[in-house]
Amino acid sequence: MAKTITISLDVMGGDVGPDVVIPGADLSLLRHPNIRYELYGEKDAVEPILEKYPRVKAASNFHHCEVSITMDEKPSRALRRGRRDSSMWKSIEAVKNHEAEVMISAGNTGALMVMARFCLRMMAGIERPALAAIWPTLKGESIVLDVGATIGADAQQLIDFSLMGSAMARALFNLEKPTVGLLNIGVEEVKGLDEIKTAGAMLREVSLPGLKYSGFVEGDDLGKGTVDVVVTEGFTGNIALKSAEGTAKQIAEYLRAAMSRTLLARIGYIFAKQAFDRLRQKMDPRRSNGGVFLGLNGVVIKSHGGTDAEGFAAAIDLGYDMIHNGLIRKISTDLEIYEQSKIATDENEKSQ
Amino acid sequence: MAKTITISLDVMGGDVGPDVVIPGADLSLLRHPNIRYELYGEKDAVEPILEKYPRVKAASNFHHCEVSITMDEKPSRALRRGRRDSSMWKSIEAVKNHEAEVMISAGNTGALMVMARFCLRMMAGIERPALAAIWPTLKGESIVLDVGATIGADAQQLIDFSLMGSAMARALFNLEKPTVGLLNIGVEEVKGLDEIKTAGAMLREVSLPGLKYSGFVEGDDLGKGTVDVVVTEGFTGNIALKSAEGTAKQIAEYLRAAMSRTLLARIGYIFAKQAFDRLRQKMDPRRSNGGVFLGLNGVVIKSHGGTDAEGFAAAIDLGYDMIHNGLIRKISTDLEIYEQSKIATDENEKSQ
Repeated sequence: MAKTITISLDVMGGDVGPDVVIPGADLSLLRHPNIRYELYGEKDAVEPILEKYPRVKAASNFHHCEVSITMDEKPSRALRRGRRDSSMWKSIEAVKNHEAEVMISAGNTGALMVMARFCLRMMAGIERPALAAIWPTLKGESIVLDVGATIGADAQQLIDFSLMGSAMARALFNLEKPTVGLLNIGVEEVKGLDEIKTAGAMLREVSLPGLKYSGFVEGDDLGKGTVDVVVTEGFTGNIALKSAEGTAKQIAEYLRAAMSRTLLARIGYIFAKQAFDRLRQKMDPRRSNGGVFLGLNGVVIKSHGGTDAEGFAAAIDLGYDMIHNGLIRKISTDLEIYEQSKIATDENEKSQ
Repeated sequence: MAKTITISLDVMGGDVGPDVVIPGADLSLLRHPNIRYELYGEKDAVEPILEKYPRVKAASNFHHCEVSITMDEKPSRALRRGRRDSSMWKSIEAVKNHEAEVMISAGNTGALMVMARFCLRMMAGIERPALAAIWPTLKGESIVLDVGATIGADAQQLIDFSLMGSAMARALFNLEKPTVGLLNIGVEEVKGLDEIKTAGAMLREVSLPGLKYSGFVEGDDLGKGTVDVVVTEGFTGNIALKSAEGTAKQIAEYLRAAMSRTLLARIGYIFAKQAFDRLRQKMDPRRSNGGVFLGLNGVVIKSHGGTDAEGFAAAIDLGYDMIHNGLIRKISTDLEIYEQSKIATDENEKSQ
């Protein structure tokens, strides 16, 4: 049997809380019987639901927490109020104390980010965390980061994101040398912010075993899947992600309206139902639910707050894969290799 | 009969040139018989095609130009080589010399931007131009700017964009007081770049007759049509636009694949063909072809380089509407009112 993987869950997080988290944990457990859960939440809210899912109960330790962070709480307030006693904090702390290998929450993104950073601290050599999203493309899936952990990034931070993103791509997509592109705009006269140009030049200069730098990509390359990893700073990344999500919803709505408008269309819909189901599955946002916070001493995954059990299970599966494939180890190794090749390049330049 | 509107065309611009521009001009002329064209291009390339479109020929003055700007030419080189003699320059100059009211080109975006700015100069009170796109939404259409004229914008420039965008919304959508939102990201901890916050506060403070400030919007509000005008700086705007375009293409491709995969799906497609045609029309990028350069002393419209005659005609129609509804006058009036209300606010504050 496969090695046990221990996952801590903030059971109170999300728009719904335990009624989504526990059934989600059950779905994921069916797929990965070697998961153990450390569950954190309010006793009165969690225990009745846990009774209904004996499989989860049998595979879990439950820890009562007095405090739950609300979805609209300011991160600074959440940290003040929820440090020590909240289900969010406790479940992150489980990763810090090596009681769990990955933490998953559907709770307040800002609070999760602040608490995770405060509790786990940044990895040596990384200045700022990034939130990485899995982006469905015409070729399969890509990783896009940062989609909103921090605003702005200098050249060094863009390189850190490239290293972390490609480590994640290797852990998730089973690639040896993922391609990496820097997100940029194509209007000739204004092409390239300085930090993007510098990062590009630096990535070209050092030769890294874990990634292949492919140059600049534009907004429409995201959906095409031109590269495996798209790197940008958090403001632009967040807007690109939400703009794409918004467009997908918009087209789904157009399609729904068109297909119910006339009798002929409705008949056509019945014939093509399987095809529509397939399309719906392709476009299902639950399939790629789960943003990964990269750059911390531990893996923390943010599930959409409004997702259902199937979506939450996808976030657990993602965490499982990250641990199973040694994400953190891959990132540390890459950082070391990068540091060494930077030193080598510098010395090379000096000796010339 | 309606007043004549004179439009200058860079006939050599675009991936195809005269073979798209002249048929496009013909289509638009059918819809607006009161258009006159000033055509700029190479004699040998344009005249044979013009012979095939007698209606355009009859409604035009043709001007031979020795130089054509290529699609991949660097803007600085284009300006050096094409100033004076190129079809792009000459057709912009026609607006400057009041021989035309609006100029349209499917040519090199960067070159067009630089030449237009150099030739027409900025409007008094505006520091930097913006490229405004028409964005199809669930509610109809919105205006999004800047989608790539310049990188970065300070608070004052975001306000300028708000004023210009709302003037364009009034000219195009027949609205009295369009709603305006500033594009931002929703992650609580990092919410708001300083310049966006400042612009928001300033827009709230001055009360303007020509727009209603609605606060921050996020990336998914673009497709929803939450506001009539979405304001952002050019880097983010360009990435949002291309990310949405990419997603639309991606879903169209999923749909095409799903509908041709099985016999039942193909039968269903035949029944629902009308519905699919309707959907295709809704998603047709040609419908919203044409970005408007705002902030110059004259209206310049950029058509997609790869569009066809129908798409180019849409860009001409857009130019027609902008002139017909007095875009430049609306912008100047708004700028004056804004200046006055700023003075009033300042004096008010002093007297308190």
